[in-house]
Amino acid sequence: MTAVDLDAFFHKMADAAGDAILPFFRTSLAARNKATGGHFDPVTEADKAAEVIIRRIIAAAFPEHGIEGEEFGLEREESEFRWIIDPIDGTRAFLAGLPVWGSLVGLMRGGTPVMGMMSQPFTGERFWGDGSKAQARSPLGERRLKTRSITALGDAILSTTSPRIIPTALRERYDRVEGAVRLARYGLDCYAYCMVASGHMDIVIEAGLNAYDIVPLIPVIEGAGGVVTTWSGENPARGGDIVASANERLHEQVLKILAG
Amino acid sequence: MTAVDLDAFFHKMADAAGDAILPFFRTSLAARNKATGGHFDPVTEADKAAEVIIRRIIAAAFPEHGIEGEEFGLEREESEFRWIIDPIDGTRAFLAGLPVWGSLVGLMRGGTPVMGMMSQPFTGERFWGDGSKAQARSPLGERRLKTRSITALGDAILSTTSPRIIPTALRERYDRVEGAVRLARYGLDCYAYCMVASGHMDIVIEAGLNAYDIVPLIPVIEGAGGVVTTWSGENPARGGDIVASANERLHEQVLKILAG
Repeated sequence: MTAVDLDAFFHKMADAAGDAILPFFRTSLAARNKATGGHFDPVTEADKAAEVIIRRIIAAAFPEHGIEGEEFGLEREESEFRWIIDPIDGTRAFLAGLPVWGSLVGLMRGGTPVMGMMSQPFTGERFWGDGSKAQARSPLGERRLKTRSITALGDAILSTTSPRIIPTALRERYDRVEGAVRLARYGLDCYAYCMVASGHMDIVIEAGLNAYDIVPLIPVIEGAGGVVTTWSGENPARGGDIVASANERLHEQVLKILAG
Repeated sequence: MTAVDLDAFFHKMADAAGDAILPFFRTSLAARNKATGGHFDPVTEADKAAEVIIRRIIAAAFPEHGIEGEEFGLEREESEFRWIIDPIDGTRAFLAGLPVWGSLVGLMRGGTPVMGMMSQPFTGERFWGDGSKAQARSPLGERRLKTRSITALGDAILSTTSPRIIPTALRERYDRVEGAVRLARYGLDCYAYCMVASGHMDIVIEAGLNAYDIVPLIPVIEGAGGVVTTWSGENPARGGDIVASANERLHEQVLKILAG
């Protein structure tokens, strides 16, 4: 399969995920159902619906490949290739009606992330990359992604899901980074990594991620010129405490502060 | 001028604001210019460009009306009618490339907000209202807005710009509300009030707002069935410490906690 075909394959999965999820976004069904005493969680239903369709598309094209998803676990663990799916990354944003969640699909080969895409069907945005280049599409057009070249922490825009979910033992270190940057934003999940790849933000710091939260984003960040590791500079592909930066010089400064 | 004409007039201003602002959104001009030692702040430039065009549209249609804008101050203070403009509410989101800022225009008569609109040109969303009804348009369609009827704080979704910008003396009270709700989101400015009007969020608590941050949103929130006052239950039309809630019963509980 050529690179162009693989691009089209990722877009096909993103189309299907968007079709499955959007009917559940900003629905009032949850509230109405609650009044009758039933149980209906639109984000879980949308998550499942999208993961089922993405798994079906992958299995039809690559029946021998492994698949790991947030909702339905791991199939064909022994395969050289493994697809990683997080149908809705940013469930709290989704629940609040905010357009800063995304559907993530990544492909790993021999444990290394080789391609990934984030798609946001409400805004019509997609961000994808293969580790050597990254691309985005939005209502404003399609373009090559390039991280920023700023190297002073004081110029940087930082994001984290919430300072309050960083473990207390690590929070003081995080706070030192936040105190050094120009601006901090919260509550973004995958959207923040895509803003780093796009050159709008510069640093993302998070703690306790699952592999499926970060694997699909690694080829996008790296393809745009960014760097992503654990807080201690290790391979981020198994999740954990993660830092992404626009460039190596910025990353070194952040890791140094986070090392304590 | 009929209500329908006034709707069209608000949309005309929103169209013009979007055309003026979008070329500055997610631009890399700031970084490039910085490298040469020049000064270029895309959010300020976009703010000014939009306010100039909105003022021109108002002055052409209603030359006797007052206009108050964030960038260029107050004209014709003595007029019974006053237009209130905040071309980019949510400048930090704008700077970080996030689609949760908005352009605000409101109309006051004798000091009372009578109509307002929030427009988000990147997502193609608009939220508008006249105090008795409110409407929204998005890529998913156009619909009447209605706040949620939940009355238990434990079911509510709360938003604030940042707990860190609430004055220390008031923060403990804010934290008691945050501790009682289901979910809190940060960094949203006008977008949060529109999510309350839309029935996706339930409470917004902010401190130290300017009149132009809230006046255009009051007819939208109230038109959707929500309530907006200061923390002490007073008229919100001069800004200050503001609370908006999906309904009266929720609002009373929040005000009680905020009263200390």
